[in-house]
Amino acid sequence: MVTPDRPLQVRDIGEPGLLQRLQAFCPAEVIGDDAAVLAVSPGRSLVVTTDVLVDGVHFSDRTTTPEDAGWRAVAANLSDLAAMGASPLGITIGLGLPGDVTVEWVDRLYQGITTCLQPYGTAIVGGDVVRSPVTTISITAFGDVDPHQVIRRSTAKPGDAIVVTGYHGSSRAGLELLLHPEQGQSLTPHDRTALIQTHQRPTPRLDVIPLLFPSSPSSFPSLAIAGMDSSDGLADAIVQICRESQVGARVDRRHLPIAPALQAWVSPEQAIDWALYGGEDFELVLTLPLDQAQRLVSQLGHGAAIVGTTTVELGVWLVDTEGNFPEQALSREPGFQHFEPD
Amino acid sequence: MVTPDRPLQVRDIGEPGLLQRLQAFCPAEVIGDDAAVLAVSPGRSLVVTTDVLVDGVHFSDRTTTPEDAGWRAVAANLSDLAAMGASPLGITIGLGLPGDVTVEWVDRLYQGITTCLQPYGTAIVGGDVVRSPVTTISITAFGDVDPHQVIRRSTAKPGDAIVVTGYHGSSRAGLELLLHPEQGQSLTPHDRTALIQTHQRPTPRLDVIPLLFPSSPSSFPSLAIAGMDSSDGLADAIVQICRESQVGARVDRRHLPIAPALQAWVSPEQAIDWALYGGEDFELVLTLPLDQAQRLVSQLGHGAAIVGTTTVELGVWLVDTEGNFPEQALSREPGFQHFEPD
Repeated sequence: MVTPDRPLQVRDIGEPGLLQRLQAFCPAEVIGDDAAVLAVSPGRSLVVTTDVLVDGVHFSDRTTTPEDAGWRAVAANLSDLAAMGASPLGITIGLGLPGDVTVEWVDRLYQGITTCLQPYGTAIVGGDVVRSPVTTISITAFGDVDPHQVIRRSTAKPGDAIVVTGYHGSSRAGLELLLHPEQGQSLTPHDRTALIQTHQRPTPRLDVIPLLFPSSPSSFPSLAIAGMDSSDGLADAIVQICRESQVGARVDRRHLPIAPALQAWVSPEQAIDWALYGGEDFELVLTLPLDQAQRLVSQLGHGAAIVGTTTVELGVWLVDTEGNFPEQALSREPGFQHFEPD
Repeated sequence: MVTPDRPLQVRDIGEPGLLQRLQAFCPAEVIGDDAAVLAVSPGRSLVVTTDVLVDGVHFSDRTTTPEDAGWRAVAANLSDLAAMGASPLGITIGLGLPGDVTVEWVDRLYQGITTCLQPYGTAIVGGDVVRSPVTTISITAFGDVDPHQVIRRSTAKPGDAIVVTGYHGSSRAGLELLLHPEQGQSLTPHDRTALIQTHQRPTPRLDVIPLLFPSSPSSFPSLAIAGMDSSDGLADAIVQICRESQVGARVDRRHLPIAPALQAWVSPEQAIDWALYGGEDFELVLTLPLDQAQRLVSQLGHGAAIVGTTTVELGVWLVDTEGNFPEQALSREPGFQHFEPD
């Protein structure tokens, strides 16, 4: 608690409070999306995003191999680029390492990083390695995008369809199986492995972008797409898009895409909770006109779905079109990072 | 020491050894300069550089205000851009913070960062803030450059003049005054402050770049310039340029530019040692044809000088044209960062 005799500390205001405070030091136009967009030349904009991961906070040898830590760190950054509509150009890696980290551990981290990058023809283009009391991985990814094809959170219109590009809740389910291996006895070995893999090796949805902009930019000068990724949870994504766009939403609980393996394992209530709040599915959440949304979902398959509609009224509601459940207000859950005493 | 019963650790191979090992994961063309260069569009290349700074390793509240820590972190990155011939586009900041860091400390860090950025019209365009047991500042700076005007370490030719853009040794002298305030009693208050300021608030030499390329790129299609910055010491810069360019050098000890305040304070031997090995002067070290070098030095003034000549023979020698000192082989001193037990 804050007491009169000591100054305000970062744990008092938390990560969100501090980020908000630090935005005062940034130009207004770069705030509020998964990544910053900079006009570089008339036809191209540069998109930049950065993440810091700390041993014991964001990864741990107890639960994550170094390959998986590397993969996940890169996947999260590439997902931020996808969320902006950008194609990756490269990443830089800043490493802080205690002296007793094994060289093999670092090699394996970089194996995971390059394996994740490889399908996208993207490379590690720079970095720094320094001594530190705690292993810290800082990744900056940059990509490029046609300025007319930038996807922002703030451009949703009332009446848009809300599309999610794939199943939700699987990553949280995979984490549960890792933390409690005794659970999920009813799962087939294949399904168990698939859920765990979804958590350990998420796939950034860079494949979605060409489907959104199939032709030259001039033929869709005003394609009305808004969106972000669901790394902090599907509920978080919908609420943030609505807040930034000054719209509301009605989301149908029966339309949330849950992987069959997860449906077969846990109760519908548990599955919906994980889908909305589990986080780290790294899918895209997009709003666009209904006809385009329908076309996109049919092209994507594999769990892509229209989950609801944006509205003029500002509330975000989870509804049941069959009337068995009362309407429920959706909100962002508290994030995963807190500046609390260890 | 490495013993048969434990695996190789990063402290066994140190930062240089680890960086070399990790380069196997990077494309060959991005290795070996102050920053990576990526072809983005026909006329522009993207330049990216990243640095990680750790509390207690690279800065400390005992010797550095948060404003100065922020300033120096940015200055180092902007200096890397200048060393590549690039103009800054923006920076991202990844912060790892213990919960008990005061909000005021973070505010003051950002004040230092934005104050350093301001003259260059450059902004913080993104970032991340996470909980960490140790304060860690990770900065990635990116800039753009005409592909024909990239400055590399590997393009020096025998017979080029070696230019330094300003005084060397002043930053090391300023550090000495900070660590041992009882020293330098002979200095005027103005000179003392100026030396300390050189250490606390170094100026990246982005102002040099327009002087190197005054006209359109097509009029200097083959301007033969090589270079890097002197952040790790003047000797280090000359040796690295020579090694990457497969040339040698003869550097005249009488031509090393030493600030008058430093000359008046310490012995010539001490001043030359700090100039060569002190580091953190953040000047540029450039090789170019003699006539262009002379023109550049006269334009720069303020300590800029031709300090020597590159040679066909591969050795790098510190010589005395007046013959009072024997020739002395120059080498990089060990860097500042080691993975040794704390």
